[in-house]
Amino acid sequence: MADRYFTGTDRVRYEGPDSDNPLAYRWYDPDRMVLGKRMADQLRIAVCYWHSFCWPGTDPFGSGTIDRPWMQPGDPVAMAEQKMAAAFELFETLGVPFYTFHDRDIAPELGSLRETQAAFARMTEAAQAHMERTGIKLLWGTANLFSHPRYMAGAATNPDPEVFACAATQVRDALEATHRLGGVNYVLWGGREGYDTLLNTDLTRELDQLGRFLTMVVEHKHRIGFPGMILIEPKPMEPTKHQYDHDVATVYGFLKRYGLEDEVRVNIEVNHATLAGHSFEHEVATALALGIFGSIDINRGDPQNGWDTDQFPNDANDLALPLARILEAGGFTTGGFNFDAKIRRQSVEPDDLLHAHVGGIDTLARALLSAEKLVKDGRLRRFVEDRYAGWTGPLGRDLMGGMDLASAADAGLAMDPKPRSGRQEMLENLVNRVV
Amino acid sequence: MADRYFTGTDRVRYEGPDSDNPLAYRWYDPDRMVLGKRMADQLRIAVCYWHSFCWPGTDPFGSGTIDRPWMQPGDPVAMAEQKMAAAFELFETLGVPFYTFHDRDIAPELGSLRETQAAFARMTEAAQAHMERTGIKLLWGTANLFSHPRYMAGAATNPDPEVFACAATQVRDALEATHRLGGVNYVLWGGREGYDTLLNTDLTRELDQLGRFLTMVVEHKHRIGFPGMILIEPKPMEPTKHQYDHDVATVYGFLKRYGLEDEVRVNIEVNHATLAGHSFEHEVATALALGIFGSIDINRGDPQNGWDTDQFPNDANDLALPLARILEAGGFTTGGFNFDAKIRRQSVEPDDLLHAHVGGIDTLARALLSAEKLVKDGRLRRFVEDRYAGWTGPLGRDLMGGMDLASAADAGLAMDPKPRSGRQEMLENLVNRVV
Amino acid sequence: MADRYFTGTDRVRYEGPDSDNPLAYRWYDPDRMVLGKRMADQLRIAVCYWHSFCWPGTDPFGSGTIDRPWMQPGDPVAMAEQKMAAAFELFETLGVPFYTFHDRDIAPELGSLRETQAAFARMTEAAQAHMERTGIKLLWGTANLFSHPRYMAGAATNPDPEVFACAATQVRDALEATHRLGGVNYVLWGGREGYDTLLNTDLTRELDQLGRFLTMVVEHKHRIGFPGMILIEPKPMEPTKHQYDHDVATVYGFLKRYGLEDEVRVNIEVNHATLAGHSFEHEVATALALGIFGSIDINRGDPQNGWDTDQFPNDANDLALPLARILEAGGFTTGGFNFDAKIRRQSVEPDDLLHAHVGGIDTLARALLSAEKLVKDGRLRRFVEDRYAGWTGPLGRDLMGGMDLASAADAGLAMDPKPRSGRQEMLENLVNRVV
Amino acid sequence: MADRYFTGTDRVRYEGPDSDNPLAYRWYDPDRMVLGKRMADQLRIAVCYWHSFCWPGTDPFGSGTIDRPWMQPGDPVAMAEQKMAAAFELFETLGVPFYTFHDRDIAPELGSLRETQAAFARMTEAAQAHMERTGIKLLWGTANLFSHPRYMAGAATNPDPEVFACAATQVRDALEATHRLGGVNYVLWGGREGYDTLLNTDLTRELDQLGRFLTMVVEHKHRIGFPGMILIEPKPMEPTKHQYDHDVATVYGFLKRYGLEDEVRVNIEVNHATLAGHSFEHEVATALALGIFGSIDINRGDPQNGWDTDQFPNDANDLALPLARILEAGGFTTGGFNFDAKIRRQSVEPDDLLHAHVGGIDTLARALLSAEKLVKDGRLRRFVEDRYAGWTGPLGRDLMGGMDLASAADAGLAMDPKPRSGRQEMLENLVNRVV
Repeated sequence: MADRYFTGTDRVRYEGPDSDNPLAYRWYDPDRMVLGKRMADQLRIAVCYWHSFCWPGTDPFGSGTIDRPWMQPGDPVAMAEQKMAAAFELFETLGVPFYTFHDRDIAPELGSLRETQAAFARMTEAAQAHMERTGIKLLWGTANLFSHPRYMAGAATNPDPEVFACAATQVRDALEATHRLGGVNYVLWGGREGYDTLLNTDLTRELDQLGRFLTMVVEHKHRIGFPGMILIEPKPMEPTKHQYDHDVATVYGFLKRYGLEDEVRVNIEVNHATLAGHSFEHEVATALALGIFGSIDINRGDPQNGWDTDQFPNDANDLALPLARILEAGGFTTGGFNFDAKIRRQSVEPDDLLHAHVGGIDTLARALLSAEKLVKDGRLRRFVEDRYAGWTGPLGRDLMGGMDLASAADAGLAMDPKPRSGRQEMLENLVNRVV
Repeated sequence: MADRYFTGTDRVRYEGPDSDNPLAYRWYDPDRMVLGKRMADQLRIAVCYWHSFCWPGTDPFGSGTIDRPWMQPGDPVAMAEQKMAAAFELFETLGVPFYTFHDRDIAPELGSLRETQAAFARMTEAAQAHMERTGIKLLWGTANLFSHPRYMAGAATNPDPEVFACAATQVRDALEATHRLGGVNYVLWGGREGYDTLLNTDLTRELDQLGRFLTMVVEHKHRIGFPGMILIEPKPMEPTKHQYDHDVATVYGFLKRYGLEDEVRVNIEVNHATLAGHSFEHEVATALALGIFGSIDINRGDPQNGWDTDQFPNDANDLALPLARILEAGGFTTGGFNFDAKIRRQSVEPDDLLHAHVGGIDTLARALLSAEKLVKDGRLRRFVEDRYAGWTGPLGRDLMGGMDLASAADAGLAMDPKPRSGRQEMLENLVNRVV
Repeated sequence: MADRYFTGTDRVRYEGPDSDNPLAYRWYDPDRMVLGKRMADQLRIAVCYWHSFCWPGTDPFGSGTIDRPWMQPGDPVAMAEQKMAAAFELFETLGVPFYTFHDRDIAPELGSLRETQAAFARMTEAAQAHMERTGIKLLWGTANLFSHPRYMAGAATNPDPEVFACAATQVRDALEATHRLGGVNYVLWGGREGYDTLLNTDLTRELDQLGRFLTMVVEHKHRIGFPGMILIEPKPMEPTKHQYDHDVATVYGFLKRYGLEDEVRVNIEVNHATLAGHSFEHEVATALALGIFGSIDINRGDPQNGWDTDQFPNDANDLALPLARILEAGGFTTGGFNFDAKIRRQSVEPDDLLHAHVGGIDTLARALLSAEKLVKDGRLRRFVEDRYAGWTGPLGRDLMGGMDLASAADAGLAMDPKPRSGRQEMLENLVNRVV
Repeated sequence: MADRYFTGTDRVRYEGPDSDNPLAYRWYDPDRMVLGKRMADQLRIAVCYWHSFCWPGTDPFGSGTIDRPWMQPGDPVAMAEQKMAAAFELFETLGVPFYTFHDRDIAPELGSLRETQAAFARMTEAAQAHMERTGIKLLWGTANLFSHPRYMAGAATNPDPEVFACAATQVRDALEATHRLGGVNYVLWGGREGYDTLLNTDLTRELDQLGRFLTMVVEHKHRIGFPGMILIEPKPMEPTKHQYDHDVATVYGFLKRYGLEDEVRVNIEVNHATLAGHSFEHEVATALALGIFGSIDINRGDPQNGWDTDQFPNDANDLALPLARILEAGGFTTGGFNFDAKIRRQSVEPDDLLHAHVGGIDTLARALLSAEKLVKDGRLRRFVEDRYAGWTGPLGRDLMGGMDLASAADAGLAMDPKPRSGRQEMLENLVNRVV
């Protein structure tokens, strides 16, 4: 394993639950069949570029702690090539089918937009070569519209239309690169599409700008024949005080407002869900109910901290029910599980990246097996069906079918509905029993 | 003032800022003209029935502390009449133009829905008499679909259609009573339209039930010729773990989903806004931007406590900017400021109700005068217009007018937008300077 | 099983992990040895009286949903006797060794303190008879100093010393009853020892009153020879805006201030920990570090709701690490796990109480078995020991042993400490591997 | 005003409430007498070095937006000198009496601790010259023990004693520099004295290390004859998951544990208070009650965001009551108001620093004038005294003076205390009336 960046192993393999090898999978067995598909095809796991290869370990109170070969002074494109080699080494070592990137992750920001564009084009080619060599595919690409100072007041929602145009450049290029690389989705996360203070903000105008931008992206997608799905990633706040794509329900209303609900879906991030005051399962259930479920950024937040900690998931129990819900709805179509998760700032060894991903992937696999049991068991689903059975009876059908308020009100007068236990504790026990 | 319930004064009057009379208004001067309307007509203040006349001072850890004459054993309708006399005494003493009620506030829950209906009809007549006598009007009526055990699993979203029918009875009756009493709006707050656990919940079905119910209400409103506005009051949680009418943006998406966005607006409550992780001003701005701004439930929450404390507002600074925003948008049409606020459990003297409302009303009046200054000053508005001026120039118009992504992207390549300070601190100072 | 209240079973028994009997234990096997003690003796499980037998299903927005035989009009002492029979039926059915109560749970509040005292004495005798009959023991007793209106402004911290005296009556009586019943601890939860607003509060005085009260309790305990432990239960807020016994660290400072740190320990509640912005494990670790760990009120909160939901625990993963920490420290001495947990308001069937406790007890048992594995495995403990190994070397010993700042500073100048990975992700995986 | 960095004005002067000059004080009138002292001496305002001169406008999602002359490549010591010139230009322009710094703010981190130490010594001399030239004094100095990677796992609480020694070097040097510069206090903020995960943390040991370190600092202070006060700045979290100096009450317990409660006080930051779930006023009141009130870091947080936003205060109403409390207790001794506040990332103009400080200083001045009115009015104080009057009567004195629990309990039996309204709303109105 000479010249390797990650020295712990050259390939993480499935060894089963009894393995005590910390760099083996105990649950992730890609070819195991789960509800009619390979586990790998149910989970569609992607590793992200940014946290693991671009972040030096800075936080708002301290400088970088992580010292990687490509995080050095030197020619930025050469550094980007070294970074890409390391990234694909990790992807291959983990044996994951997908990865994800921002334009600025794979290629550097240079002096001008034009030079930066050229570097991005060159690195897109380099990525294509790595993908052909390794067979690793692109779950989605995206453009970083939040790090450069020009975006300090937003990209599409900037008070300055020139910034909107610069954002258009980046998104056009990133979308086309994603298309060229066979990406399955294209994601928009509006990190600065929001406001710091309402005092200087024209909310109505900014929403219209955002709607206009998304419409342009959808039209361009069709123009170039990109077959993938456009996804919006909701987040309520941070870095801005308030972000417009606040949560799944807010994005749904936004899509309806601009007539895009059939064109765009959501990429739900666990930690963004909890920052918005929702459970992850709630956001998944809401997206499924509203018909805009797309993909998942898997990670976890800290229940006591009010910012995006992007930790690796490590509790399969937390994920079994959301996964069962996704499976009941037919599983992913274009989406997958992208590890938008970062190691802690103190995890400075290169192999900490391996440990983190192995643990996270195993957590997902274990949750999938639990979800499979829940779906096969069927008692939970049947309990819910029974609970709402009245709605398939005559009264229920009439009420939903067009009975007017006065008739319903008259019917109601004669009724004295019996309370029925919601059985929450019994159902919680049932879940523990099954998983 | 013999036989009065509130002994402090028989009429709270405007005495000006220098008054030291605790039961006089220092700012609320109903006839003072503010931006072309009487102050009273800008604020459209209502006092609510429930907190001040129905709540005995219980909390989850303790029994009632407040001992009112009508909170005694005895014939429930006679008690309701005594309560109504006290309520109108308070409304008159305060000199407010409006009040608000739930069906169960003005009339008791009796053994059956039919008996309860009869009591409600009788008390509606009694209310009519009081209104004619006093000239006090009804800002809105509503139905209590959350206190009775039958609603423990929701009203419209109940798994049992019989409960939906009972809810229809109450809403039909309350809507018609509101119409009869000349009410200006009708409100729906879905206190239990949500879930305690997703384990026993069919989210998709419940959303459809809720959409169906609202559609029935809107149709009935037109059938009976009720000219008022139907309002939904968003709240994110409590009593349920999650409530479907989470915040303004969520309600907007819901209305769009069921094609009701031109029929229904929102009644925004301050404390509900903050429980949802928003500022009150954000919710107002969002409702205005989305065209569904209706009315306000004015109160305040505790910034450290995670439940609905419904305190009386006491800081005019907190309200000046939201009020300026409402004024800039033309002010209330059907809506107004309803004091959905309750005295603290320790405020056991009858006159504490007077102190609380006098303080709250003065806070609103003072905020209105500050808002007037901000609107007249105009610098804030002009700053925002200048900040977005580029959007009225050629590039801005083209981008919004139909330029496609590729053209925008090509334009962007040539651009190097200059950073412009957002001037947040200067604007914050400007607000302090003006108000 | 005629005349039984809980009809599902007359005894919940251990049937092993494969049992599909919802009213059997799958993990709680009282006689199984765990680290040298019976499982029952490690866990010391208690069922509480208040949530399951006194709470009718009210919440701040709705009336009671739960209809038990003793929650009826009728002679209050007769009702209390019926309630006690049902309570002991549940305790026996569950096979738990302990229970807990407030004075007002087992006997009613009557017209005067003296009558109430008599009823409490009578019901204490009744409890003694039930305890002798069943062998069930009292983990702790406590006095309810928050429900009666007299305590609306606090008990020991009330502005009125007469209320302090009434609180003394209740605590004296409850402490002596606890002593008579062989209770192992006595708990003080200061539900209203705090403030609603600082405007009317003398914080310094109230803290002194609280310190004085606790001192009197400790002296009385010694006077009557009560061998049990006095415990304070921290909670940050609710019902008051701020409660003085905010969290473990605050209680520690309070005990130090009044010289009581060797006399009083803490009863940590999971949901109170999270309301205070801490993890449950943090509060346990802090109490152990400060030498004041006493007992646990086991439940769980809702991660999205900001009030005390007191749900039954249902995720053994959440509890394994805190339990391992308790085991490493030698386990409980006088403390135990008290189920301060309540069924949901919709769980209206009597047997829902059985399901809830069976699930909660099994969750604890499963967590204990996981904790046993972690302790036996030892790798976590050894990792931590290695990480701090430098502190047992010469420099570490000198620094802790008395080296002064100047010498340390001079030593520091010559040093260039090597960063060592904190290995968080690897350790998280290790936990998953072991449990 | 050639060669000036801040071009808006060369001196911000008091012009009175009617001034419309945005760079004049409307309320801050240093020589105005307030309760027997000059306003300047009551407020003791300091401007901090770090936010305004060292932070380039980065946030976790974006690079620097602020381009200052000294934030350029070049000789780091020369840059530090340029920065210092600009800093003192701002201090003088604002006319504030004090400033504050971290060691690494005024001098750069260089390749080794020894070189860094030399640069710090040189810049300390430069500071001394500026101070002599301008008359501006040092409110406090401190050492940055959180930015350098060596502190990633804490400073005094690091698992590696070598890091503790490096921290000793920095603190010794910073304390001595503070002494040399006539600093009035020395502050310790334990930004990384806490943990990211309990899995790798020995909590007991780390607390002892922290106690040991603080003891060494206190001893050294006495050794060198530093007459100032040692202050700990509480913060609950961020950057770490949990920080040991969580809030005022926690710090108090910590000081008691290590016998330092007479040697060390607290520096309370507004935004840290709210992150800990407290109001700012609560933290001030608690510190005063516990006898450890020291100084204030004045700023404000965002009520909806869960991280330290460090915004400039702009609402005098928020600060009037805490200030009144400080005045009632005699005002600051060694402490003062330090603007630990930063402009927003979009406030990229140099003069935004002026606007921000002018607004913040005026907010403090206005709050002070309100506080003066409250103190002079006296009604609030008298209400509280009356409310607790019973405690100066016979029963109150006996209870506090040594009556035992049994006697108090017997006394309580005879009592039926009357409920008295807490009058919260009336008092809130009173405050509005007075300020």
